[in-house]
Amino acid sequence: MTSRAEAQALDAADPLADLRAQFRLPDGVIYLDGNSLGALPVTTERRVRHAVEHEWGNDLIGSWNSAGWMQLPRLIGDKIATLIGAGPDQVAVADSTSVNLFKILTAAVQLRATGGGAGGVILSERDNFPTDLYIADSVAKAYGLHLELVDGSAMTSRIADTTADPIAIVMLTHVNYRSGAMYDMPGVTSAAHRSGALMVWDLAHSAGAVEVDLSGADADFAVGCGYKYLNGGPGAPAFAWVHPRHLGQVSQPLTGWMGHSAPFDFVSDFQPADGSAKFLCGSPPILSMTALDAGVDTLLAAEPYGGMAALRRKSLLLTELFISLVTPLCAEFDMHIATPLEPSQRGSQVSLERSTDGYPIVQALIARGVVGDFRAPDILRFGFTPLYTRFVDVVDAVERLREVLTSGEWRDERFAQRAAVT
Amino acid sequence: MTSRAEAQALDAADPLADLRAQFRLPDGVIYLDGNSLGALPVTTERRVRHAVEHEWGNDLIGSWNSAGWMQLPRLIGDKIATLIGAGPDQVAVADSTSVNLFKILTAAVQLRATGGGAGGVILSERDNFPTDLYIADSVAKAYGLHLELVDGSAMTSRIADTTADPIAIVMLTHVNYRSGAMYDMPGVTSAAHRSGALMVWDLAHSAGAVEVDLSGADADFAVGCGYKYLNGGPGAPAFAWVHPRHLGQVSQPLTGWMGHSAPFDFVSDFQPADGSAKFLCGSPPILSMTALDAGVDTLLAAEPYGGMAALRRKSLLLTELFISLVTPLCAEFDMHIATPLEPSQRGSQVSLERSTDGYPIVQALIARGVVGDFRAPDILRFGFTPLYTRFVDVVDAVERLREVLTSGEWRDERFAQRAAVT
Repeated sequence: MTSRAEAQALDAADPLADLRAQFRLPDGVIYLDGNSLGALPVTTERRVRHAVEHEWGNDLIGSWNSAGWMQLPRLIGDKIATLIGAGPDQVAVADSTSVNLFKILTAAVQLRATGGGAGGVILSERDNFPTDLYIADSVAKAYGLHLELVDGSAMTSRIADTTADPIAIVMLTHVNYRSGAMYDMPGVTSAAHRSGALMVWDLAHSAGAVEVDLSGADADFAVGCGYKYLNGGPGAPAFAWVHPRHLGQVSQPLTGWMGHSAPFDFVSDFQPADGSAKFLCGSPPILSMTALDAGVDTLLAAEPYGGMAALRRKSLLLTELFISLVTPLCAEFDMHIATPLEPSQRGSQVSLERSTDGYPIVQALIARGVVGDFRAPDILRFGFTPLYTRFVDVVDAVERLREVLTSGEWRDERFAQRAAVT
Repeated sequence: MTSRAEAQALDAADPLADLRAQFRLPDGVIYLDGNSLGALPVTTERRVRHAVEHEWGNDLIGSWNSAGWMQLPRLIGDKIATLIGAGPDQVAVADSTSVNLFKILTAAVQLRATGGGAGGVILSERDNFPTDLYIADSVAKAYGLHLELVDGSAMTSRIADTTADPIAIVMLTHVNYRSGAMYDMPGVTSAAHRSGALMVWDLAHSAGAVEVDLSGADADFAVGCGYKYLNGGPGAPAFAWVHPRHLGQVSQPLTGWMGHSAPFDFVSDFQPADGSAKFLCGSPPILSMTALDAGVDTLLAAEPYGGMAALRRKSLLLTELFISLVTPLCAEFDMHIATPLEPSQRGSQVSLERSTDGYPIVQALIARGVVGDFRAPDILRFGFTPLYTRFVDVVDAVERLREVLTSGEWRDERFAQRAAVT
């Protein structure tokens, strides 16, 4: 068992400790929800203010050129590429994760169709984040496929099952939003390819949180989210990646002018851009793009300290510490750890499952300054962002959870009322 | 001819003159490009800063509830509704104009298909803004229709031509981005309905610029842009409108979680929200949404002064003044006015057509502090935003244009080099 003093010693020895100063974290709050909304970087305040007051207010329309607004989708995409094992001009930053998934899945379906592989199954996980399933179902219906959902534990065997419906596309979220379980990206990708399927990864809970090597895994497509571990701010634009072996061949149906090879020629015929820009659509929301750029920079700042590999090491130390401290509480208070104990199968979060009252317990914990969240029907979720979470935060968070559970204060009626956003 | 002193007298007597103080306009610049990017409202600086530093920085994830982030798409939509003749919960604010047009066109195609009207033509204008044509072509190809383009002058006769291919959807931009010509919305909508077609309007250059009454015109669908006359900032989110007679029946393929009836129940089956929310998709970009909300408020601030009707009156006075002053220049310098002289057929811009050298002329004018823009191949475009453009600005702008043309300074090689964004 790690004491508070021992945790403080771990923080003092932490080679990444200085990176926390990049963030504006409120006093008295232990923020364990960076997996839902990353914290505010200090530079974002200045950069967004500059974009509003100087670039927009003073230079007005000229900033599309002079401030490089037009280049932001590619510029940020190239930065994100370094975090996910991708190359330059392979990542497009635009729209939301849902919209990008629609583009990517449609591109994948059409790519297969040009190779003679129409129809079949889009295979995904029953517990995948719902928006992914909604979009996949929509694409499947539009193009004569169907969406098949299996449990994560059955994924490998289903992919290998040649007696079942042929699989066109395997679409998985690398780290599950509920359980925090992480797939073996190279292994699953390889299995998908052996079955003749294309592999689409959603990196919403892994980009900036764990080491990702899309090229090394030989994946086909990916999407990801800007507002979680990339610290891009609420509803930040998302990204899409296409393996270069496909980029020249694929197309996508959201053929907006930003995906045109020459948008300012104003010609009536769509001619897709080369490279990742063909996955852009409308005009980028510059204020949110500026914040995303500043957010991604907080991860690039870890490069001199060992980059994603060092962040991953710290993340695992944080989640392991949390697991070790919370295990006795689970036994005492009818909870169990829903996240894999095996480090290689875990993202950067730990989820506790409790059949009842998870919601008010999380609310009571928030009232004590420890911000996690609840995922219906039964998950208490705690994210550990290695850029700004300290070992002492883990110790303090578990101590306050113990106090909430021991006191029964979560039974207070003010914690029962469900907010619109949980 | 109006002298500078006369223009100053018009400004002094202008009942809307005070509304200009809502904006942060740079000294020495006459900004005639609000039709491309609206100017920065003073309150936007404060509101975006508050959203960044307080809502995101301090309240973090809790702001989805406490700061009303979740309600922004509907809240802003209801405000925009008052500017375009729509009702509450009919307008969804999300994504880009291009993405919304994809949703709306697909919804329209599917609505017709459920009524037994598959196939046919999506009819549009050859000179429509290219992104509209690209998206329409994409939707047409996906659903077995084809895109037919005719000149604006031939639109009414083509709609009425029952010997040609049957028209499924008429999709037009109310005010043309190049010429500034405005369609008769009730007349064209009525003609489209007589031909059995659904009517889709793009309000990019009319929302906030001219009086729009979608309900009065009995239109079926509309989309519009947040960053032009709505002053929402660069790349601000866009909007989509559906007539309430269709809203309960239509669906759209970008079935992201924000369009779900209960996104935070995290169920695997998509159940569309009632009302306009079914046209949402992913998480809204809150910083850009906040700026859009503040931008729309600058138009609502005109309500006590007569609202859009008063703004339209001033807009026409501004464009008429510009036309009267620029007409002699056109004769002298090989230009002609490409915008209709009839006020009811004109939006809030005036375009000059010149077969050569439009680009360097606009650049030389910008160097003299008059910001218009160039639209390839031959259009010099000047937008007159009645919220912040003064009559004296019109006189001064034409005077500087005269100086640029008379001096020939636009022939300087520094004005010839095309920027990425024109």
